[in-house]
Amino acid sequence: MKLKAKVIKISTGGSLISILNNEDAKLMDLHALDRIKIKKGRKTETVVLDIADSKRVVAKGRLGVFEEVADSLNLKNGDEIRIMPARKPLSIGFIRKKLDGERLNKKEIEQIVWDIVHNKLSSIELTYFVAAGYTKTLTAKETIMLTNAMCHEGDILHLNKYPVIDKHCVGGVAGNRTTMIIVPIVAAAGLTIPKTSSRSITSPAGTADTMEVLAEVCIPIKKMKRVVEKTGGCMVWGGSLNLAPADDKIIHVEKPLAIDAKSQLLASIMAKKLSVSSTHILVDIPAGGGSKIPSYKKAAQLKKDFESIGKALKKHMKVIITDGRQPIGNGIGPSLEARDVLWVLKNDALAPKDLREKSIRMAGLILEMGGKAKKGMGKRIAKELLETGLAYDKMTEIIKAQGEKQTNPNRIRLGKYQADIKAGKSGRVKQVDNKAISKIARVLGAPDSKGSGIYIYKHMGDKVRKGEPLFRMYSESRHRIKYANDIIKAIGGFLIK
Amino acid sequence: MKLKAKVIKISTGGSLISILNNEDAKLMDLHALDRIKIKKGRKTETVVLDIADSKRVVAKGRLGVFEEVADSLNLKNGDEIRIMPARKPLSIGFIRKKLDGERLNKKEIEQIVWDIVHNKLSSIELTYFVAAGYTKTLTAKETIMLTNAMCHEGDILHLNKYPVIDKHCVGGVAGNRTTMIIVPIVAAAGLTIPKTSSRSITSPAGTADTMEVLAEVCIPIKKMKRVVEKTGGCMVWGGSLNLAPADDKIIHVEKPLAIDAKSQLLASIMAKKLSVSSTHILVDIPAGGGSKIPSYKKAAQLKKDFESIGKALKKHMKVIITDGRQPIGNGIGPSLEARDVLWVLKNDALAPKDLREKSIRMAGLILEMGGKAKKGMGKRIAKELLETGLAYDKMTEIIKAQGEKQTNPNRIRLGKYQADIKAGKSGRVKQVDNKAISKIARVLGAPDSKGSGIYIYKHMGDKVRKGEPLFRMYSESRHRIKYANDIIKAIGGFLIK
Repeated sequence: MKLKAKVIKISTGGSLISILNNEDAKLMDLHALDRIKIKKGRKTETVVLDIADSKRVVAKGRLGVFEEVADSLNLKNGDEIRIMPARKPLSIGFIRKKLDGERLNKKEIEQIVWDIVHNKLSSIELTYFVAAGYTKTLTAKETIMLTNAMCHEGDILHLNKYPVIDKHCVGGVAGNRTTMIIVPIVAAAGLTIPKTSSRSITSPAGTADTMEVLAEVCIPIKKMKRVVEKTGGCMVWGGSLNLAPADDKIIHVEKPLAIDAKSQLLASIMAKKLSVSSTHILVDIPAGGGSKIPSYKKAAQLKKDFESIGKALKKHMKVIITDGRQPIGNGIGPSLEARDVLWVLKNDALAPKDLREKSIRMAGLILEMGGKAKKGMGKRIAKELLETGLAYDKMTEIIKAQGEKQTNPNRIRLGKYQADIKAGKSGRVKQVDNKAISKIARVLGAPDSKGSGIYIYKHMGDKVRKGEPLFRMYSESRHRIKYANDIIKAIGGFLIK
Repeated sequence: MKLKAKVIKISTGGSLISILNNEDAKLMDLHALDRIKIKKGRKTETVVLDIADSKRVVAKGRLGVFEEVADSLNLKNGDEIRIMPARKPLSIGFIRKKLDGERLNKKEIEQIVWDIVHNKLSSIELTYFVAAGYTKTLTAKETIMLTNAMCHEGDILHLNKYPVIDKHCVGGVAGNRTTMIIVPIVAAAGLTIPKTSSRSITSPAGTADTMEVLAEVCIPIKKMKRVVEKTGGCMVWGGSLNLAPADDKIIHVEKPLAIDAKSQLLASIMAKKLSVSSTHILVDIPAGGGSKIPSYKKAAQLKKDFESIGKALKKHMKVIITDGRQPIGNGIGPSLEARDVLWVLKNDALAPKDLREKSIRMAGLILEMGGKAKKGMGKRIAKELLETGLAYDKMTEIIKAQGEKQTNPNRIRLGKYQADIKAGKSGRVKQVDNKAISKIARVLGAPDSKGSGIYIYKHMGDKVRKGEPLFRMYSESRHRIKYANDIIKAIGGFLIK
């Protein structure tokens, strides 16, 4: 059937969806969620169909296309197109098979991942896949196949090195910017560590957001390779690379129920590690009240899961469970966290001790895994590399190679508007709530407004007098400071007893 | 936060969804799929939030509202509104609980059904509920609780009668319009049978579409009650009543994977039966190749499931498995099927024998269940009621009570354009494919164009000579006849050997 395109300027956030008028749909006997193939000139694209009951949305003789479809076929309003019925993606049958509790083979898993990456599934269909993986846990073999499929649907960084180091943190702790200290230490020791990081989704800053204060992080894979070959390390935004791209789409449908389909989570993480050719991986699981994993039993189970998938993928894997009960470091928000990192690397008196200690410990473990230190000696060597300034030198080298923005902590610009929050009573700090601190920092403007966020003066266990400042707020907007004050009244953040 | 409404003239098909500009969302730290409460004057509504990255969709200071939200709050472009963060619906936690394999209690199930009926869940969240019910089958107790919750979320027809008869067919067979013959026979015998039926979703006609050729079917519940009290029966469109309204929303997310979450399916059906106060229910499961349930083993399992839920709900329930391998009756499409029905009721020579036989058999079983015939004698009495014209008289009485359109089969208007499809070779008809026949009838215009459809001349087992007509096509559009011819070339429909 010949139609004219009507571009609807709304993004579906991934799925390729078009809308047909009710009458045209009836003529072709097409229904909502059927597939159609759209042809414009020589280009074709298969999309999910939705039906408009009102001609106000899409008139007869028109096909409404959302932004993703318009982009894919380069469609403009009024362009002539042809549509024809198409089959549903093969993976729908495989997802159903998994829902029925059957095992999937390699081909079937690869097809599902291909359809996810190419936006061939509606969000309802993808949700069934996640639900299937959640209720009918994937076998170890299926998880490995999923990991490989997710990795191979994206680009791969090939490095002619051994070992290739990686680290991963499951998240949930504000601050905690260890990566930016570990990478220069490890690279300074002569190891290869091509680190990709994410931007914040619900936190006030991801490592990519923070590194962006100091250097370019949106880097094509070829340049990433040159940086790593030159300096031994890098810290780039994974989202600007096409590594294991199925991941984000799966996360999108997991969020509403806040479920972690464990097999798919492990596969996502490991696929990204495979994509950068890692051979040795250190995984950090912050646990305890106020963190993402309050139960130490669950943390121990997750540790086991990581270890067994690491073994199955023939990777050297070490998993540590760390204290995740409060923020790590003093700065919360990209610029404030970047300043903490540089203070640590420059051995400045203002360096937060907890961040420094945790980074040295983890870097030490990596040096031992990578053969640069004997067992038990890693921490000492890591500390030396930090204290001699070699790690800071390596950091500036990496920053220059990626595209320098700043290497001096004292020149980092912070939010123009500032206000202190003071203790309402005297006592001892019993709790600094990760979720509340993150929320406040986000309301202040982090992560998009780099200089916005929080600087924490008091940590768990500290004594505090009434009227003493607990933390300082930074923002580029007076309005946001006011709004943050309202939020603090509602949710608190510090517990003093 | 104060905003102005921007009405987006697109229907989401149920879910209450609004779109906020990225910058406003960041200020309030709101994310996609969060909930917000919208206040306009004294009215409030809680909706699911989506975020627009581009200000072309929704500018700063605006809230984009889809049609459902605009209707609910009576919003017009530019109306001033206030929004504030709201909690996620309680049922999300309960759905997650079920996904984790735990049992739900009455309150939890009621909350889920309430949230479904009031459009409080996004389609992703609802999909998790269906997936949970599919993979972690509901217990018998949970299914009963779900049935009751679904029933009580809608209106209920209270009748001061005993027994109250109902029938149900799981569908999948073209034609098969037994309801419209059974209801007048059963009512003529003095029983009460307040029948609600559905319109077609993917078939060429539902009972409601077909009955609409003869009488009004969109009837408020009060009038339905009057019709039943006067005539003993009725045949109305369930969709115009507010009976167990959660059903349609669940079906919407089941379709993409073509899964029947069995517990939820049974609960949906039984909830509708409870809504009309039925006490005695006959269920027809057409099975065999080409039907919805090709496997007789699965049909037998479904029979058992119906029987056990019927028992648990203390209903008199009889379940029969019938031959569903080919269409039943000759007409396919609302007017053609209505004509068959009236021919049967008028004992016309043109009455299709298969439809007549099946209806007599089922009506007979109901007469026995309802105490109007001794065991084994129902069929004879049903046949008498039909042959004496008492059933036809009852039909005209019901038609008049609902609002008469037509009672004479020979005056029913059929499609203006007609064309015969002839046998390509001589032999015996081995197969008449339900799906293909339905597809062709729909392409010809059924069910919306009442007079469009197919009239079948040859059935399974019939001998046919090359060039003899197999069926006649009826349509109101020459274009559709042409398009149907193309479809027939592609998919056939008749197998002659």
